[in-house]
Amino acid sequence: MSQSAPHPVPIRYGFLGPAGTFTEAALLSVPGAQEAERLPYESVPAALDAVRRGEVAGAVVAFENSVEGAVPATLDDLSIEEPPLHIVREILLPVEFALMGRPDTKVEDIKTVASHPHAYPQCRKWLAEHLPDARWIAASSNADAARLVSEGVHDAALAGAFAAPFYHLTVLAKDIHDVGGAVTRFVMVVPPGPAPDRTGADKTSLAVVLRDNHPGALLEILEEFAVRGVDLTRIESRPTRSRLGTYWFSIDCEGHLEDERVGEALMGLRRVAAEVRYLGSYPRADERPVEVRPGTSDEEFDEAAAWLRGLRSR
Amino acid sequence: MSQSAPHPVPIRYGFLGPAGTFTEAALLSVPGAQEAERLPYESVPAALDAVRRGEVAGAVVAFENSVEGAVPATLDDLSIEEPPLHIVREILLPVEFALMGRPDTKVEDIKTVASHPHAYPQCRKWLAEHLPDARWIAASSNADAARLVSEGVHDAALAGAFAAPFYHLTVLAKDIHDVGGAVTRFVMVVPPGPAPDRTGADKTSLAVVLRDNHPGALLEILEEFAVRGVDLTRIESRPTRSRLGTYWFSIDCEGHLEDERVGEALMGLRRVAAEVRYLGSYPRADERPVEVRPGTSDEEFDEAAAWLRGLRSR
Amino acid sequence: MSQSAPHPVPIRYGFLGPAGTFTEAALLSVPGAQEAERLPYESVPAALDAVRRGEVAGAVVAFENSVEGAVPATLDDLSIEEPPLHIVREILLPVEFALMGRPDTKVEDIKTVASHPHAYPQCRKWLAEHLPDARWIAASSNADAARLVSEGVHDAALAGAFAAPFYHLTVLAKDIHDVGGAVTRFVMVVPPGPAPDRTGADKTSLAVVLRDNHPGALLEILEEFAVRGVDLTRIESRPTRSRLGTYWFSIDCEGHLEDERVGEALMGLRRVAAEVRYLGSYPRADERPVEVRPGTSDEEFDEAAAWLRGLRSR
Amino acid sequence: MSQSAPHPVPIRYGFLGPAGTFTEAALLSVPGAQEAERLPYESVPAALDAVRRGEVAGAVVAFENSVEGAVPATLDDLSIEEPPLHIVREILLPVEFALMGRPDTKVEDIKTVASHPHAYPQCRKWLAEHLPDARWIAASSNADAARLVSEGVHDAALAGAFAAPFYHLTVLAKDIHDVGGAVTRFVMVVPPGPAPDRTGADKTSLAVVLRDNHPGALLEILEEFAVRGVDLTRIESRPTRSRLGTYWFSIDCEGHLEDERVGEALMGLRRVAAEVRYLGSYPRADERPVEVRPGTSDEEFDEAAAWLRGLRSR
Repeated sequence: MSQSAPHPVPIRYGFLGPAGTFTEAALLSVPGAQEAERLPYESVPAALDAVRRGEVAGAVVAFENSVEGAVPATLDDLSIEEPPLHIVREILLPVEFALMGRPDTKVEDIKTVASHPHAYPQCRKWLAEHLPDARWIAASSNADAARLVSEGVHDAALAGAFAAPFYHLTVLAKDIHDVGGAVTRFVMVVPPGPAPDRTGADKTSLAVVLRDNHPGALLEILEEFAVRGVDLTRIESRPTRSRLGTYWFSIDCEGHLEDERVGEALMGLRRVAAEVRYLGSYPRADERPVEVRPGTSDEEFDEAAAWLRGLRSR
Repeated sequence: MSQSAPHPVPIRYGFLGPAGTFTEAALLSVPGAQEAERLPYESVPAALDAVRRGEVAGAVVAFENSVEGAVPATLDDLSIEEPPLHIVREILLPVEFALMGRPDTKVEDIKTVASHPHAYPQCRKWLAEHLPDARWIAASSNADAARLVSEGVHDAALAGAFAAPFYHLTVLAKDIHDVGGAVTRFVMVVPPGPAPDRTGADKTSLAVVLRDNHPGALLEILEEFAVRGVDLTRIESRPTRSRLGTYWFSIDCEGHLEDERVGEALMGLRRVAAEVRYLGSYPRADERPVEVRPGTSDEEFDEAAAWLRGLRSR
Repeated sequence: MSQSAPHPVPIRYGFLGPAGTFTEAALLSVPGAQEAERLPYESVPAALDAVRRGEVAGAVVAFENSVEGAVPATLDDLSIEEPPLHIVREILLPVEFALMGRPDTKVEDIKTVASHPHAYPQCRKWLAEHLPDARWIAASSNADAARLVSEGVHDAALAGAFAAPFYHLTVLAKDIHDVGGAVTRFVMVVPPGPAPDRTGADKTSLAVVLRDNHPGALLEILEEFAVRGVDLTRIESRPTRSRLGTYWFSIDCEGHLEDERVGEALMGLRRVAAEVRYLGSYPRADERPVEVRPGTSDEEFDEAAAWLRGLRSR
Repeated sequence: MSQSAPHPVPIRYGFLGPAGTFTEAALLSVPGAQEAERLPYESVPAALDAVRRGEVAGAVVAFENSVEGAVPATLDDLSIEEPPLHIVREILLPVEFALMGRPDTKVEDIKTVASHPHAYPQCRKWLAEHLPDARWIAASSNADAARLVSEGVHDAALAGAFAAPFYHLTVLAKDIHDVGGAVTRFVMVVPPGPAPDRTGADKTSLAVVLRDNHPGALLEILEEFAVRGVDLTRIESRPTRSRLGTYWFSIDCEGHLEDERVGEALMGLRRVAAEVRYLGSYPRADERPVEVRPGTSDEEFDEAAAWLRGLRSR
């Protein structure tokens, strides 16, 4: 990938800002990102547009699980907006909030707690138990909530613990989450180019528009995967903007563009769907190798192709 | 439905507040809601808990399309939380924002525009064109943005036009939407009870947990529908909270609990899935009749059942 | 089964004659058949018509594997002719021929060997090796070949070893079969009545006419079985008599009419096929128990039905 | 095809003899066969072995519909025996028998009627009506029955009308068939070589051995066809010789080896089946063009392949 090549000048990455969001924490986990220039953007579309314009080499945005509210924005932008972009990496971060205030703030004095609206459901029970009298206040991001606390507008903020030093705040409580084990999946998005090398533990992301909405149209799409032994890891119907009740599908499947079974499934989709957008193949963050079903390995695809060539060339 | 029976005291409905949200507009379109007591709740879970506790007879919450950010909250709460609730009605509202300010505000003086973060992407292009110098500010809801404008905190708010009179604001621009034709789907949710009568143009909502994540598990689920000629109108994989990469499915299908083909499909799901939660059958808002595939009408199901009984009773 | 009830007069069974065929050997393996009156018929249709007319309580005919050439005749008659009959038992016999001659015949003197034309391919290699100079001659059945040998018309016959004593012949060679392990499957056919009791190792036979010949019509039929976890053990397309290229299907599946999964699959077929004829449920001759796939046991069907009733009766 | 090339010496074809069978009539309908040398063989395996040994350029044998009893013999030999042979042509002949006798024979004097056992069920009702007192006698083929009549052994024979002149017999009755519209399908079989050119109205024949007998194994095979829009025109399970209850499948599908959709389906079968034997692509005798489902034309396959190459070559 071009973005991982050495650069004389620092490489620049975008992310959904402001500084101190979970998204920046995700970006910082990318090799080389510590040394890179990191530009915050006010929205997912703004970050992705910056990639399209070449302002940054890539951008990290939330893809799945709704902590920052970015999921529909990311899915829709990547699947619909032009020109297309490609995912080259996924990053998983546990969803855990910290309650933070100015260094002199005591928990018992907190009257207002600010956060992005999506953080609120994750922390509602905790707040009801620990700060029953505090009022919750919306902010445009958790990091912005922290900034407003540092400016004295609110008493405390819920944000990722990594945000506290950015805003000279003190962490008053950690590991806050009403639901245990929640994880957010972020993706690094870059301009179209060669996919990262196959690792044997890869995913491929797609956007598929059905040719028509007849009964069984979705089943047809899924059979294109199933018959080649390609398992889906995520599928979401997304409403077509022009009309509720018509859908396109955001799909992640196991395997890599270079896998023969994935390639044949993609060609099948291309033929039966109205539109297929390839959104990139990239290593799974959990590094769990794909289980290849008998009859669907590259070797078996190649052997079958050689057999067919033999039949045809008699 | 019990909630539509006459009441000596006004019936009470909950909705995602505050007053003046699109959700309240959706509630007001329900027959009888104009005369009902309408209680705003600060979050989807709070509104649904009020139904569970019997505080209200029902609640209207956004289900699909992300204007108010309620979708994941609604899906997850209805599908997972106990005790179950049922959908008895769907309501479609076009997504159109109005820019509103205090009566003496002039458009050229607007420095700050507040709204829920989800309204922002819908209006970003409009703002860039018409108010290029105004700063956008997050609020916990569009209606709260309007309230803050009425209190003089911000200069203008983006909200449904119906919100303006609540807060003594003036509509400065209407029909604002970056994407045309967008619609939000709301649902009325009540405690479990008999489903609304069949109309021939019905939907049924379900939450389905796969028994295991083996390749083709989703396909198996879809075949339970397909083989009975039941078309899906929406499917979304939702991450299991305990572990990213494992999913349950939020599904809407055509037809009614009382339709034989739907009943048999439900029984099939019940047998092959780890868990199936029935979330209600209700008339389609668009009143589009279901096309019944040959071999799947109630008459054909009944005839086949009679035939089998005949074979077995010899 | 009524035909196994005690009778003051001997019960009568038909079979594809004449005496001494493999079919009579199959009949003799049926409990009670040794004491029964056994009537030979000259053809499969004649034997089945005798059952229809009540001349015999049941008849044994070959069903599968072409030793006596009876297979298409049996399939077509059972599937098409009126009134329908039911299979209540299957019988497996190894296919092994004996060379038999008159008591004074020496192998080296054999000039002519008679058999049914279908026996010939099974014994061709053996004859070429052991009787290279003998001429093969067609007979209407192997038993008739033996009869003609006993009358001095031919020198030797190929037939089941059990035929020799009927015709006062001597077995000159045994266990003749060009292909090892061949088995013929016979069925006992009776007038419609209750199926034999479930054993857990049962089969059900059907004839299915597709509603139309559209691509995927056969797949639809098979999915009716697959979605209920019912495995097929045999399927054959049979040409519709009126037009080559249109087919009906002769199908054996695992399980019993009383199994819930079989019953639901039958109802599904009844709805999507132009015609389904039930040809009986009966114990497997090999007594191999059916493997019940998770989600398809009677208990699971009953539980799902109770769940649906609960949903509907709120 | 080599067998249609000009030859200095007459080309030689084999057929299931003797002279005067329906099979020879089928052979005679092949262009060039009138001038070719035509060699009768006593059995289907003998005719096919003659092709394998190069004794004849090709052979015509019955494939479907049981008039001559050749079907299982043909299916099994082509599907199992080595080396493989290819079908290059199919020929359809109506099944109609003639009653023939020596020139001086009167119908009322007929005491015995000879035919192959398979002709008997087709003529049984006719005989019962017109010759109720005549006895039916088996022959090894209909033509052999005619020969025996010409030699004075029997009084009359049932055979194709074309057989009468061969044996100097007179046709006493024509168009005898208990079932109207019956047709036999013959095939011309040659050594492996290039398939006949595509006509757009082609068939492809295959023999497929399932990898294992798990429930749904057959469905998997059929889905390899269905997902590429390839319709089956015939499927028969054939018992594996070594063990009753295990099967291989004799399959005809629409389309030609050179069709992309057929090629991909063949490769899919090759990967998931234990064994696939290609038995030839050839024009349909009825010249009915294949309906190509949207998404499965060669152009669409090529476009999808080009698209995939584009994605991979970035």
